[in-house]
Amino acid sequence: MTENSNFKPCDLVIYGALGDLSKRKLLISLYRLEKHHLIEADTRIIGVDRLDETDSSFVDIAHKSLQAFLNNDIDVQIWQRFAQRLSYLKIDLTQPEQYKQLNSAIDPEKRVMVNYFAVSPLLFKSICHGLHSSGALNAESRMVMEKPIGHDLKSSVEINDVVAQVFHENQVYRIDHYLGKETVLNLLALRFANSLFYTCWNHNTIDHIQITVGEDIGIEGRWDYFDKTGQLRDMLQNHLLQILTFVTMEPPADLSAQSIHMEKIKLLKALRPITYLNVEEKTVRGQYTAGYIQGKPVPGYLEEEGANTESTTESFVAIRVDIDNWRWAGVPIYMRTGKRMPNKRTEIVVNFKNLPHNIFKDSFHELPANKLVIHLQPNEGVDVMMLNKIPGIDGNIKLQQTKLDLSFSETFKKNRIFGGYEKLILEALRGNPTLFLSREEIEQAWTWVDSIQDAWQHNHTPPKPYPAGNWGPVASVALLARDGRAWEE
Amino acid sequence: MTENSNFKPCDLVIYGALGDLSKRKLLISLYRLEKHHLIEADTRIIGVDRLDETDSSFVDIAHKSLQAFLNNDIDVQIWQRFAQRLSYLKIDLTQPEQYKQLNSAIDPEKRVMVNYFAVSPLLFKSICHGLHSSGALNAESRMVMEKPIGHDLKSSVEINDVVAQVFHENQVYRIDHYLGKETVLNLLALRFANSLFYTCWNHNTIDHIQITVGEDIGIEGRWDYFDKTGQLRDMLQNHLLQILTFVTMEPPADLSAQSIHMEKIKLLKALRPITYLNVEEKTVRGQYTAGYIQGKPVPGYLEEEGANTESTTESFVAIRVDIDNWRWAGVPIYMRTGKRMPNKRTEIVVNFKNLPHNIFKDSFHELPANKLVIHLQPNEGVDVMMLNKIPGIDGNIKLQQTKLDLSFSETFKKNRIFGGYEKLILEALRGNPTLFLSREEIEQAWTWVDSIQDAWQHNHTPPKPYPAGNWGPVASVALLARDGRAWEE
Repeated sequence: MTENSNFKPCDLVIYGALGDLSKRKLLISLYRLEKHHLIEADTRIIGVDRLDETDSSFVDIAHKSLQAFLNNDIDVQIWQRFAQRLSYLKIDLTQPEQYKQLNSAIDPEKRVMVNYFAVSPLLFKSICHGLHSSGALNAESRMVMEKPIGHDLKSSVEINDVVAQVFHENQVYRIDHYLGKETVLNLLALRFANSLFYTCWNHNTIDHIQITVGEDIGIEGRWDYFDKTGQLRDMLQNHLLQILTFVTMEPPADLSAQSIHMEKIKLLKALRPITYLNVEEKTVRGQYTAGYIQGKPVPGYLEEEGANTESTTESFVAIRVDIDNWRWAGVPIYMRTGKRMPNKRTEIVVNFKNLPHNIFKDSFHELPANKLVIHLQPNEGVDVMMLNKIPGIDGNIKLQQTKLDLSFSETFKKNRIFGGYEKLILEALRGNPTLFLSREEIEQAWTWVDSIQDAWQHNHTPPKPYPAGNWGPVASVALLARDGRAWEE
Repeated sequence: MTENSNFKPCDLVIYGALGDLSKRKLLISLYRLEKHHLIEADTRIIGVDRLDETDSSFVDIAHKSLQAFLNNDIDVQIWQRFAQRLSYLKIDLTQPEQYKQLNSAIDPEKRVMVNYFAVSPLLFKSICHGLHSSGALNAESRMVMEKPIGHDLKSSVEINDVVAQVFHENQVYRIDHYLGKETVLNLLALRFANSLFYTCWNHNTIDHIQITVGEDIGIEGRWDYFDKTGQLRDMLQNHLLQILTFVTMEPPADLSAQSIHMEKIKLLKALRPITYLNVEEKTVRGQYTAGYIQGKPVPGYLEEEGANTESTTESFVAIRVDIDNWRWAGVPIYMRTGKRMPNKRTEIVVNFKNLPHNIFKDSFHELPANKLVIHLQPNEGVDVMMLNKIPGIDGNIKLQQTKLDLSFSETFKKNRIFGGYEKLILEALRGNPTLFLSREEIEQAWTWVDSIQDAWQHNHTPPKPYPAGNWGPVASVALLARDGRAWEE
């Protein structure tokens, strides 16, 4: 699976190389890319952190991380190739003068400097300042950071401003790992390469769309952090709006970053604002109480370790979104995301309209509508639910719903499916910004989400309780039932 | 697979019970229906022919036919059940007074008399006359005959007139076994139960449709009969127009015979006439010369046993059909059928339009259009050709054509697929006329086909030669190439 390409090699500098993000995700993903010969031969990986490590002790740390977090055995040959790329610099990120060390580690003539900010945004200002004063950056340099960018519009603007002082917008790669998933990318193919879907993708044929991101886990020891954020800002702003834009944006003129970013921004701008006037009708806030996940008892949100028992933070949110443009007028999008749901599940369901007339009443009093179901977790895949004649010799034509698998055909079984994270790291190393988020997009998303958060605060909307192991409070069912609809089972 | 139903038992009278049609097809199909408990317990089967047989010798003949033509072993229990239904009457079909015997064999109080005319149409007049004078018929009685009905409009009208003197149109069941095929019936489900297809099924989304009925066999010892008929009248009028109507008719208001027959007639009336003025441009006649079928040498049409070496009868025909109505304006239908083609193949290909714009130029300079392929022979099935992203971590989104199987999902594997013939015999026994052809439909089809035949005669259009084992003459390729299209490979 070697790939011929003309990509320039990089000096990938990881700030926070000894931290969790680096050890659990970044190094693992880089090793996997190495395994498939996807990293340019001359690319180097420079770990930066404040601890007193050496090149060789960093190599040991990387090896231990792989042992702990890689699901497969470490292949000796691949590891040797990988380890040769690694080096370590001890830098106290708050001390600008220490960044000068970078100049001896990188080679701007041969390689592009890619700065991976795997640290808290609180340190971004220092890093930018240090990088600037080191003189290591040039117009080719890139910086990579992961969502969420801030926790509201104001904090997001602050972070983007800090970064913008040193990096031009086209040097900034904002990661949402959902956008690297095969199935999200396949959405582009489904929508824009197939007239069968292209023709149907609008209010004439589509009744409504559902987006579900359910987690079965609870707060997992980070109660304090989560309680300040809540599910709306932690998940909905972060991932669900991203999925929404890919499903509903207008067809871009091409696949360039500019074209796709513009369509996503346009879509986000068309989301009908939710304010204190309609927030009760359009949204449902929930907070889990004690319950059972797959038969095991689990505590409620207010009983978790470190909990403030007065908290009114939501661990579940359901929203009816309206898109005020020509394509989607009258087509609601229902989004829900929560913790302590019955299982881990991320999916998009495109519900087509019912046919205006039914000539198969013997089979179905009401014909079930066609449905396109796009699974992102736990497994990726795309299904179409259609109706087919049941083979047989009955007097009447009997129909049955049939699930068609659109994605995992025999042809593709041999292709390894990469994770979204690996895909995006590789794209950052290659310098292809299409799948990353623009500043304007992030800020537009926060603007819309802030309005909901403000409305809840204004109205003092309390979260509705739901027992752990359920798909949120009953009000979430009612949100769709009022419109004569129901969540996908 | 027993079926509860309220169908009345029948006295099924087979005229020509010792003939080929009866022995090769009818008795075999009836046995298969028996096997699956689909024939009413009280139904009886009365063989009628002129030879001197008895009930028991007819039972022996039926047993021998099963041994010769049933592909499976005969099950003793099923056979015993079946044999008990059989009886025989010796009637010289040309002698009206002999039909009186029927009165002692049937029981109109308990059973519906179903008269299966498994003889040459030359005998229909005698049978109708005999049946009439016997007094055996009542308003419930039915008659079944198989296509082709005549060889042109005039002969078809004559046959229908003869039958109409004794049977009302709603008592007449005209069989085209293609209409009993699972896949043809599934077309109704695909088109009218799925908004994904319902929405696309018109000139906005569909570019053109192809219908192919290819046979690998030659004339098989019936040269004289075939030479008087030709492929246009023997196959195109017979089967291809039937398939065409199911693919292109307007949505019927319900599944009643009346509604479906009406839509089929409307469609046939909308076919743009082909006359001597445009026949050269719209049609291709072909006649096979010596060639190879799967490596074996075969003689040409004019070298077959019993051939008249001067014959200009066509063994292949390709036609561009235009439908002059709102749905299909500008969407040509290409039909081809021939003998000595490379293999036996019956299929419908619905070619969707190309998308107006291509954002995946890296994969395909021209994106292949979506296609719906409906196979009737050698195997039944429905595929959709779509484009999918190739899973992988390439810099660009790479697409690949993927074939989706729409019909034989896991769910259906357990259902035995019945042949079209069995299905239609059962429908005739049940008295459900939906899948049979109305007189008006047949006559409309002949009107359109006669115009082509007359145009060829008027212009003295000679058939173009093609070597056996090819898909017709080169002119057939040119017919589509002129429109910038190509036959499905």
